[in-house]
Amino acid sequence: MSDWINVAVDAMGGDNAPEEVVKGAVNAVLESKRIRVFLTGREDAIQKELEKYTFPAEQVEIVNAAEVIETAEPPVAAIRAKKDSSIVKGMKLVKDGSCDAFVSAGSTGAVLVGGQVLVGRIKGIERPPLAPVIPTTKGASLLIDCGANVDARPSHLVQFAKMGSIYMEYVMGVKNPRVAIVNIGAEEEKGNALVKETFPLLKACGDINFIGSIEARDIPEGGADVIVCEAFVGNVILKMYEGVGGTLIQVVKQGMMTSLRSKIGALLVKPALKETLKAFDLEQYGGAPLLGLNGLVVKTHGSSKAVEVKNSILQCIAFKEQKINEKIKEQIGQKAEA
Amino acid sequence: MSDWINVAVDAMGGDNAPEEVVKGAVNAVLESKRIRVFLTGREDAIQKELEKYTFPAEQVEIVNAAEVIETAEPPVAAIRAKKDSSIVKGMKLVKDGSCDAFVSAGSTGAVLVGGQVLVGRIKGIERPPLAPVIPTTKGASLLIDCGANVDARPSHLVQFAKMGSIYMEYVMGVKNPRVAIVNIGAEEEKGNALVKETFPLLKACGDINFIGSIEARDIPEGGADVIVCEAFVGNVILKMYEGVGGTLIQVVKQGMMTSLRSKIGALLVKPALKETLKAFDLEQYGGAPLLGLNGLVVKTHGSSKAVEVKNSILQCIAFKEQKINEKIKEQIGQKAEA
Repeated sequence: MSDWINVAVDAMGGDNAPEEVVKGAVNAVLESKRIRVFLTGREDAIQKELEKYTFPAEQVEIVNAAEVIETAEPPVAAIRAKKDSSIVKGMKLVKDGSCDAFVSAGSTGAVLVGGQVLVGRIKGIERPPLAPVIPTTKGASLLIDCGANVDARPSHLVQFAKMGSIYMEYVMGVKNPRVAIVNIGAEEEKGNALVKETFPLLKACGDINFIGSIEARDIPEGGADVIVCEAFVGNVILKMYEGVGGTLIQVVKQGMMTSLRSKIGALLVKPALKETLKAFDLEQYGGAPLLGLNGLVVKTHGSSKAVEVKNSILQCIAFKEQKINEKIKEQIGQKAEA
Repeated sequence: MSDWINVAVDAMGGDNAPEEVVKGAVNAVLESKRIRVFLTGREDAIQKELEKYTFPAEQVEIVNAAEVIETAEPPVAAIRAKKDSSIVKGMKLVKDGSCDAFVSAGSTGAVLVGGQVLVGRIKGIERPPLAPVIPTTKGASLLIDCGANVDARPSHLVQFAKMGSIYMEYVMGVKNPRVAIVNIGAEEEKGNALVKETFPLLKACGDINFIGSIEARDIPEGGADVIVCEAFVGNVILKMYEGVGGTLIQVVKQGMMTSLRSKIGALLVKPALKETLKAFDLEQYGGAPLLGLNGLVVKTHGSSKAVEVKNSILQCIAFKEQKINEKIKEQIGQKAEA
């Protein structure tokens, strides 16, 4: 029984809760015999959703929480006030060791604050970064930090680089991952004050494969495996991925509908196109881990459907099996403490 | 004769110089009887290119410059040392009033430094921003600043907002342009230190139509007409536009080539698609103006072809006719001085 990977799941978080969250959780336990989910939220609502499915009862539990933290609420106040919310209860299950991980599609702010305040940082880790896996033409890269710590300092970015490197190597299976810092030119002397100060520190790290600067233009082509940046910049990169991608696909679709000739063509290319573009779907990898905490916290998109929730839950297996947090503790936390 | 719009053009700048630059300059004078170009660079090389075309002789002049500033050269040192370079000579033509504008596809750093040092800022303007026009599904937006001033201060961003507003209204013809600041959330309390400090200042500006924050995701859909940001962030936005756009189009093309069925479809959709995607081409609007200088300096892509050079030259007409610099002086420069 100690072999279970216990994952608390915020059944009330996101635009499609509880339907899609519960469905995703059920699909996760059907896919892996090792996962046990703890659905936090309103018992009656969760129960009603669960009745739609058949699954091994021992793999699904409900943890009642009467309150919900809304996206618009100020995160710090909400985490403090709503002790009986699905987010606070889920975080506490990780804190007290009952669960290995917590997955939420709810308020990003509340998840970030809750992660720091309730789950707590690994000793020596200065700031926990939010690190989504993004698709590239070469496979996938880790974007770290993409929204947790604006106005970060150079020492934070160095820890991001190391944590990201461990994650890509042991969870995503990329050997000796290439680490780069986002910059506005390829040369070492380019950049803003933060990048100029961080660059030599990364260069001096013996334990990562630092390849220098990466321009944003080279990210979609997989120019690096771990893309280090301050949270404001990371957030802009992620949102541009979504925005330019979504808009262009819409423009392509419209273009195909402009004439009879192109409409017939569209019917013929559609299946092939769908397959290729799937590889470029931001949601295929599940949510973004918040790294450096005493446990794993995964933030999935607010608009997550069942498949993303399922993938977010399943990524907790590799995270636990590969002992990511133990590696972070040994390689970064203890050094920082020493 | 005083009615001429005199444009100095760096005939040696960019990957396709002098061929494409000279071709673009010739096409510009063929398209507008009001333009006179001064091609700066190696006389023999320019002469050789000019011999390929027929054009009114009074509209094209060569200004010999023996040196070329390479992209890799440190900008400040290059501007100082290479007095006989195509960039320095072109800038000086603007400085001494012989020309209204200078267009270059050469070293961005040298153009930015030269603009400040040789052409000089309008009195009261703290920092001249680089402001490309980017395509959106609604038409076009101005991205300001996109690379000239990293680590800018709030007062700089306020001036960017005002200059950008004037440019979009009078050069691009957008009535009462919507001004927004790039942020990582829509709410006023979101953001990094710079954005939090700048937001209330923009809100207090009576002379611009400030609509609040814009998330990067909403830029391609034309969520604002003037997109204000610090240069590092602006550069990342521009490069993501290029990177995601280029990669996705490549992925779409590959997708269409995966089966016989899709290949036939591709032939049918190609003409329509080409037309639609043209509207999304970053290069259609010509280069990016460097605003707030005593004259106009336009930086075009290093990879510019003749059409972008031509468009960059032609945008100087509206800039002069609409008296953009006079408006900047009156509405921003004098206030800042007072």
